[in-house]
Amino acid sequence: MEKPANSQYPIHQLLKQRWSPLAFSQQQVEKEKLCSLLEAARWAASSYNEQPWHFIVATQDNPEEFQRLLSCLAEGNQVWAQHAPVLMLSVAKLYFEKNHTENRHAFHDVGAAACSLAIEATSVGLFIHQMAGFDVSKARELYNIPEGYEPVAAIAIGYPGEPEALPEKYQQREFAPRQRKPLETFVFTGSWGNTSPVISPDS
Amino acid sequence: MEKPANSQYPIHQLLKQRWSPLAFSQQQVEKEKLCSLLEAARWAASSYNEQPWHFIVATQDNPEEFQRLLSCLAEGNQVWAQHAPVLMLSVAKLYFEKNHTENRHAFHDVGAAACSLAIEATSVGLFIHQMAGFDVSKARELYNIPEGYEPVAAIAIGYPGEPEALPEKYQQREFAPRQRKPLETFVFTGSWGNTSPVISPDS
Repeated sequence: MEKPANSQYPIHQLLKQRWSPLAFSQQQVEKEKLCSLLEAARWAASSYNEQPWHFIVATQDNPEEFQRLLSCLAEGNQVWAQHAPVLMLSVAKLYFEKNHTENRHAFHDVGAAACSLAIEATSVGLFIHQMAGFDVSKARELYNIPEGYEPVAAIAIGYPGEPEALPEKYQQREFAPRQRKPLETFVFTGSWGNTSPVISPDS
Repeated sequence: MEKPANSQYPIHQLLKQRWSPLAFSQQQVEKEKLCSLLEAARWAASSYNEQPWHFIVATQDNPEEFQRLLSCLAEGNQVWAQHAPVLMLSVAKLYFEKNHTENRHAFHDVGAAACSLAIEATSVGLFIHQMAGFDVSKARELYNIPEGYEPVAAIAIGYPGEPEALPEKYQQREFAPRQRKPLETFVFTGSWGNTSPVISPDS
């Protein structure tokens, strides 16, 4: 299923086509493609080039590891994510390597890396769906994630599947229109809340 | 100047070409393109579709506003960023709109939006350079940013310029090779620190 962004201003096709489906095909993801997705994350920008991102990967062809990662997800996410061929967990390193001070942008830069991964995915016909709904403590324990590192988001990856195969409630979510706040409400100039003339239609 | 990623695995041209230059041309950024950059940010993914990102924009053609934003930057960043035609500040809303609980992914999702903006920029010949080096308190004060919102990163945007116009020290940074950690060091399976077979060369 396609669900392109209904954009106010033109944006690149890859950004328009990217979305977060619930329905994944059971088709395996080629290993080379998965490497390219991770490589795309690798080249994201980061504060002081710290590269605070880490990824824990589980694929369906290793059922034990797949179950381990699946078991961290919220029940509502397990319902659909169990069918994705690849699951990941992004993890942030919270302190700078060189001086151990707090990296204020650790989560920010993991977000950028995940976005880069999503764009690469879109370019090769894959889609990703990130989830806040997972058990952080359980993930930390199951993977022995050390102090100073923080599990950030669960990620399902795969080729698009048939929405009709989803339970009714999830089908509704899958078919619902995509919604975004208007630019006017979050692009400011001069003072907080003051819409920027850059995006005012009459300027 | 181009500085494509020296990638281990193939990635999309837009991701390969994106980088964070210090040298910007004084060529103005067309208003429509700036809107497309912000639109790209708008369609990023976010936790519970909260869209926690905000952007404060200042362009060279409004010198007062440009100076206001420039004055928030660390001195070392002002040296080169003063020549960029557009400056922005990203700001995160830290609490969910619907129930006022903390949004653990606010910075993460602002990072994703900024990455999306950077990809759109690359696709139309523009580049962005994000900076952690700015005065958060001063930005909060100058723009009356309310409690519950947090300035995240300063952003310079423009067409690429001549590195030779930069002060010597900055030229060295501009010409330095781009470095990234090997995938083996941050892609794990099964347990923390255990390199994933997905990216092991011999599996």
